[in-house]
Amino acid sequence: VAGAVSEFDLIARHFTRATPSALLGPGDDCALVAPSPGMELAITTDMLVEGTHFLPDTDPGQLGWKTLAVNLSDLAAMGATPKWVLLAGSLPDGDEAWIGAFADGFFKCAKRYGADVIGGDTTRGPRNLCVTAIGELPAGQALRRDGAKADDDIWVSGQPGLAALGLAHLQGRTALPEALAKRCITALQRPLPRIELGLKLRGLATASIDVSDGLLADLGHILERSGLAATLNEGQFPLIPPGSEPKLAREAQLGGGDDYELCFTTPIAARQQVVMLAAELDLPLWRIGYTVAASAERPAGDILLTDADGKPLPLPKKGFDHFG
Amino acid sequence: VAGAVSEFDLIARHFTRATPSALLGPGDDCALVAPSPGMELAITTDMLVEGTHFLPDTDPGQLGWKTLAVNLSDLAAMGATPKWVLLAGSLPDGDEAWIGAFADGFFKCAKRYGADVIGGDTTRGPRNLCVTAIGELPAGQALRRDGAKADDDIWVSGQPGLAALGLAHLQGRTALPEALAKRCITALQRPLPRIELGLKLRGLATASIDVSDGLLADLGHILERSGLAATLNEGQFPLIPPGSEPKLAREAQLGGGDDYELCFTTPIAARQQVVMLAAELDLPLWRIGYTVAASAERPAGDILLTDADGKPLPLPKKGFDHFG
Repeated sequence: VAGAVSEFDLIARHFTRATPSALLGPGDDCALVAPSPGMELAITTDMLVEGTHFLPDTDPGQLGWKTLAVNLSDLAAMGATPKWVLLAGSLPDGDEAWIGAFADGFFKCAKRYGADVIGGDTTRGPRNLCVTAIGELPAGQALRRDGAKADDDIWVSGQPGLAALGLAHLQGRTALPEALAKRCITALQRPLPRIELGLKLRGLATASIDVSDGLLADLGHILERSGLAATLNEGQFPLIPPGSEPKLAREAQLGGGDDYELCFTTPIAARQQVVMLAAELDLPLWRIGYTVAASAERPAGDILLTDADGKPLPLPKKGFDHFG
Repeated sequence: VAGAVSEFDLIARHFTRATPSALLGPGDDCALVAPSPGMELAITTDMLVEGTHFLPDTDPGQLGWKTLAVNLSDLAAMGATPKWVLLAGSLPDGDEAWIGAFADGFFKCAKRYGADVIGGDTTRGPRNLCVTAIGELPAGQALRRDGAKADDDIWVSGQPGLAALGLAHLQGRTALPEALAKRCITALQRPLPRIELGLKLRGLATASIDVSDGLLADLGHILERSGLAATLNEGQFPLIPPGSEPKLAREAQLGGGDDYELCFTTPIAARQQVVMLAAELDLPLWRIGYTVAASAERPAGDILLTDADGKPLPLPKKGFDHFG
């Protein structure tokens, strides 16, 4: 009907942009791509639900960025180069201002990391956004969770815990100084997937994961899949941000999700290379501990947290589980 | 926590099965696959929302089948061989009986059509299921919507309209005889993606689409993308099922979605091959009309429906639009 904004119009207007890396972009039954010869594909899908992952009044532009960023973070964790993205969305209405702002944020993130949005689906229903992201990497070079070896160094990038502090601030559970609040809310709403770090870790890291559920929980996944335990030294952790409540900030660092930093393991022999990589990327990389062969006393997945003097510390609760 | 059914347990228990076609299946940040040399990939995503695409009391096993089938139908329309599937789901609770039955239906469909379920995501929220399906096809052989030529034959497979009749019956808008009701409800709840047909149409069809929004609406997409009009002859359509209300059945045939038959175009010279293909596949293929070069009187997308004598007939309303 002339004048009506139909589903197809909405999609075409806001989500159809040039897709130079694809043979065929949005508008057909499928998108078509030609994978590069000799490359493997890393593929991931993530669903973000209003009320579970974001609040109804979340800024749509920031939500657009984050919706894609959390998927690209999974590609970063594998060491893959982002290539193609599909977006399916359920929306309660055809609110074009919201859709336009969301699309802007989504495409800003796609452009920043070099991904083409090649297809999607739009339907009516409770707000829900589902992205599938596809990246390429040279055969055999993927950074899997199951490759860590005993006595590897354990590293984490950036400043994990800021996003959880930002959420606590927004929810009134803590009061951060203004500059720190701004930094933490940016970490929460506009996470930066560590794509460049992931690419540089190919051939260097033995295992890698992105910190989406919390550092201890996600490190636990590496340990379980690799059949190892770990000892962490709190004295080697990133410093707690000045102005935050120390206990809350430490819990956020160990258990807070949503930062999308990378946690990875490397052989001791690679330690100097990782230090140089941090300088090259201008990104802090913290050597927070080491892996330990599993044993009867310390089964696979076990994490021992110690203070700077090696004295055991209690573990805070683990990451967020939607059905826990 | 021991004894608790966590998100990760639920996924692992029901959605992790062998993935022989992948290098790495569920359980890491990404799945890993190695595309076959020289093949292109066809990629599609579809979201099914409770209340919009299915009712809350829908049988979970049938819903599992259909959730995958509607995605594989998009691969069929491109002429692609199903390879890899990802499933993201938002669920209101951790109801294991529901999840188990859904997984059974989903994997039955995956097995029937040779696809491996290589990854996914599970979260809490209003029930919503999002599938991404990836298929392979030889370079340059995809059946796109934009390839139809003037004076091509227009075909549709099977018996479009049964699913819409089944829905009308379930909603009490019509009363079908028992055997027909059963057939129509099966068409609605357990659609068969026309994968084998799509593969055989490679090199034969000039354009193809799956009928998800309704025959006229979906044919319209081919016509718009190919810059053509079309003339359809009701006398060449599939017969209305005996026992149905003729007017409703005809509307269902022209405008009802959810059958997932294929509508495709072929050069006149290929007519005999298509007839032989119908026999080979034991699947009716109906030559319902022909394409016409667009003109001032008949712009691209225009569809003229005539009776068997060539007399124009009014068009019923077009397909379903979630934001119309």
